Amino acid sequence: MRIAILGATGSIGTQTLDVVRTTLPGAEVVALTGYRNINTLAELANEFMPKMVCVPDSDSATQIKQLLTAPCEVLTGMDGLISCAVQSGADIVVNALVGQAGLAPTLAAINAGKDIALANKETLVTAGQLIMDLARDKGVRIAPIDSEHSAIWQCLQGNEGNEIEKIILTASGGPFRTWSQEKIMAATAKDALRHPNWSMGAKITVDSATLMNKGLELIEAMWLFGEIAGQDRNDSNGIEILIHPQSIIHSMVQFADGSVMAQMGLPDMRLPILYAISASKRVKTGFPRLDFFTCGSLTFEKPDAQRFPCLALAIHAANTGGTLPAVMNTINEWAVGQFLQDKISFYGMSEIIAQAFAAYTVKPLVSIDDVIEAESWANEFIMKNFTQ
Amino acid sequence: MRIAILGATGSIGTQTLDVVRTTLPGAEVVALTGYRNINTLAELANEFMPKMVCVPDSDSATQIKQLLTAPCEVLTGMDGLISCAVQSGADIVVNALVGQAGLAPTLAAINAGKDIALANKETLVTAGQLIMDLARDKGVRIAPIDSEHSAIWQCLQGNEGNEIEKIILTASGGPFRTWSQEKIMAATAKDALRHPNWSMGAKITVDSATLMNKGLELIEAMWLFGEIAGQDRNDSNGIEILIHPQSIIHSMVQFADGSVMAQMGLPDMRLPILYAISASKRVKTGFPRLDFFTCGSLTFEKPDAQRFPCLALAIHAANTGGTLPAVMNTINEWAVGQFLQDKISFYGMSEIIAQAFAAYTVKPLVSIDDVIEAESWANEFIMKNFTQ
Repeated sequence: MRIAILGATGSIGTQTLDVVRTTLPGAEVVALTGYRNINTLAELANEFMPKMVCVPDSDSATQIKQLLTAPCEVLTGMDGLISCAVQSGADIVVNALVGQAGLAPTLAAINAGKDIALANKETLVTAGQLIMDLARDKGVRIAPIDSEHSAIWQCLQGNEGNEIEKIILTASGGPFRTWSQEKIMAATAKDALRHPNWSMGAKITVDSATLMNKGLELIEAMWLFGEIAGQDRNDSNGIEILIHPQSIIHSMVQFADGSVMAQMGLPDMRLPILYAISASKRVKTGFPRLDFFTCGSLTFEKPDAQRFPCLALAIHAANTGGTLPAVMNTINEWAVGQFLQDKISFYGMSEIIAQAFAAYTVKPLVSIDDVIEAESWANEFIMKNFTQ
Repeated sequence: MRIAILGATGSIGTQTLDVVRTTLPGAEVVALTGYRNINTLAELANEFMPKMVCVPDSDSATQIKQLLTAPCEVLTGMDGLISCAVQSGADIVVNALVGQAGLAPTLAAINAGKDIALANKETLVTAGQLIMDLARDKGVRIAPIDSEHSAIWQCLQGNEGNEIEKIILTASGGPFRTWSQEKIMAATAKDALRHPNWSMGAKITVDSATLMNKGLELIEAMWLFGEIAGQDRNDSNGIEILIHPQSIIHSMVQFADGSVMAQMGLPDMRLPILYAISASKRVKTGFPRLDFFTCGSLTFEKPDAQRFPCLALAIHAANTGGTLPAVMNTINEWAVGQFLQDKISFYGMSEIIAQAFAAYTVKPLVSIDDVIEAESWANEFIMKNFTQ
């Protein structure tokens, strides 16, 4: 197995390399890319000896060349990312890039017939229809790296041809699950970054606090599983969001007979990473095991769209489809950045998204240009209304 | 699909017919057998018009002939049971017989190449090795009708070739789960018959109170899944018993990667019945659905072999193998009968089984005669020691 890892120095990237190190001795890492952490990228390249590394620009290329002891080709920018995906000889491309940078390399890799292990949310949120149609045409497997979608995928194994009644997407509820609306109003970035179960990057941790993350996952689930579930891919009705504060049940599928299949485990991203890379074969691991005698009670609650308006906005975008999820994603990314710098309040984020929705005329999604145009509109909307 | 139902008037039998009635309009019921409830059997036969019915003796044959409006052949006794399994033209034989009567028809049906939906516990507990070896030789599927084993079977779907780390067999813990040893000492049959979650026959409800039922299920799981799990079929180490008082998770499988798959649902036997009959295809049902918003917390506890010695005895029998499970089963059946008549105490049941274990020399299980001999020994042991 030859693996290219795009975004190797981030949380998913380093955990992917840990999975390779500990459970896949036969795997070969053929490409690694990084953005800001050039030192870390150099260390990883020196350990895994990929054919290619990619850094953002010529400055960082100069920098990493001084650190590399491995004989790697050093590439730069988006062209370099695409070369790592397509020309490194990889069988499988792990896309752990953050934000919109993830889309173009994914498309290039699918076009080149590479299987994808996808951690980059934006890819499916903004261009799910295009990605899934292309993947189907090219016979490429899109394996989710995400505890929820991996759980759903695991629940679907061996159920080809069986009718799905609903997908139950679980959510921890984030750090403000039990907070009143007044208290949430005054919540700071510091409060939001205290996630109860998962240790993740700042952007996704804030998205977990607003439940936008669950909304984005809902859109991803529509594209990944909507067709399998025999449902309109542009309709979120077959997906129920269930607050499960302990994050032990990672998600579930209810079938037409009424039976519910669930996948459970400790919150450990290495498991969905391994499952995605190994294409649903179960590889023996030494990861810590879930212990039912000590894990405590498992509880469930309804999500509260009143206190978490981002969830309602995301469901609206999911069901509207077209270019609206791309607009939402861009606005949200900016708003989270503002919140992290304490420039806007917690509810400021959803207010800005709602304002953008009101101002935007949704277009159908025919090509990647429609995504780019929608994102441009969103960026202009921000420039015009929220910056001097 | 043509179905023969052995034990049609009992709890599993009538629920099987309810499943056929409500979800399998194309299925044909070709044989029905009953024991004491001749009136019910006649009503069911008049509704489902099987080719054959079977009753215990000529008196009941005379009785049912007066009640039948359907043109059924009326058979009697063990020969009649075997004819219903083998000569009724069934594709699948549902064995919902109670006690040892279940073994011979199962063997006959497997020899005739019929798939089996098995609710009769004694079959696998006393002769698991013989049954599973024969089923493998004849290419026959043994589908469990039992919420726990059905759950395990569902968790294993799509995991062919994947290594299993452990099977997690859940148990409600029965009505005495929270009782102290002193209080259990004084427990009556009436107390034991108050099962918290499932409505079942008296014998199995007492077995749930002693946890013997879970021990019997452990032995069944060893035979049904031990080979799939890549384990010694005569070793229960790969099966963990987990007390889960709510009976929502029906059982689980932990794979070599650490991932746990679980099957969940309301306590409704019609689901495992349907899954067994339809050979793991999921048929649309209108059965009530599990609602996570109202089901409350799911909790887990260690089983307590101190307060429930029958569990330790059953695990000992499971790991000893040979003819010991058959001896245990016979002694237990008698002891439960005595307890139900208030002739012995709750702990009297486990004490008698322990005495029998101490007095018995275990033999290997080579043929069905070894099972019969073990049961004869057990019956003699009871006669000698506990009756005048």
